[in-house]
Amino acid sequence: MTDLRETELVLDPKYDAAGLITAVVTDGAGALLMVAHMNAEALAATQASGEAHFFSRSRQRLWKKGETSGNVLRVVELRIDCDQDALWVIADPAGPACHTGEPSCFYRRVEGGSLVRLP
Amino acid sequence: MTDLRETELVLDPKYDAAGLITAVVTDGAGALLMVAHMNAEALAATQASGEAHFFSRSRQRLWKKGETSGNVLRVVELRIDCDQDALWVIADPAGPACHTGEPSCFYRRVEGGSLVRLP
Repeated sequence: MTDLRETELVLDPKYDAAGLITAVVTDGAGALLMVAHMNAEALAATQASGEAHFFSRSRQRLWKKGETSGNVLRVVELRIDCDQDALWVIADPAGPACHTGEPSCFYRRVEGGSLVRLP
Repeated sequence: MTDLRETELVLDPKYDAAGLITAVVTDGAGALLMVAHMNAEALAATQASGEAHFFSRSRQRLWKKGETSGNVLRVVELRIDCDQDALWVIADPAGPACHTGEPSCFYRRVEGGSLVRLP
């Protein structure tokens, strides 16, 4: 069964039961910076402003990345996947993308049941 | 509040209510190939075999990527994010990662309300 979402050239995000779609952020060089979620409002704000907005599940509100830290993510390109349930935000980060101060949230490698902090 | 998941070097995935964690797959060059989900069994199978396994939400079962197509994803490196609710699978794909035959599921750019197929 072919889903029209896969072939048509119309943006039609497949939001989950909570109204969210996964948003994966990389920089232009392909480093994975963070994974978050957008609702329709966050996607519209991202498109209108050119800066990444998300929906915070813990705070249950719209959230502009960098709104307090200043580490905004300027959107270079936005892509969507085959079944339109995930967005790829290619971004130019103004500073560390992770709230821990690391450039990327993915600062640890998984080795069996242990994690190894990357240099 | 510092979550111990952010600082400790112990793998402790924060599965959601459905027992799943988001898994983002890129190739070694940083191209985003696909986004899927793993449960504990899929993560264990991925670590044991060195090939990416996921949990299919539509079929509600463990699924080895490429089990029918042959387009397996050999795991080069596995990373986890700050709060341990997302995995980054850096993989060497044996063929197109998308079921549509595209190398990546992200074959369309979002332009306003339209999608543009990438060359």
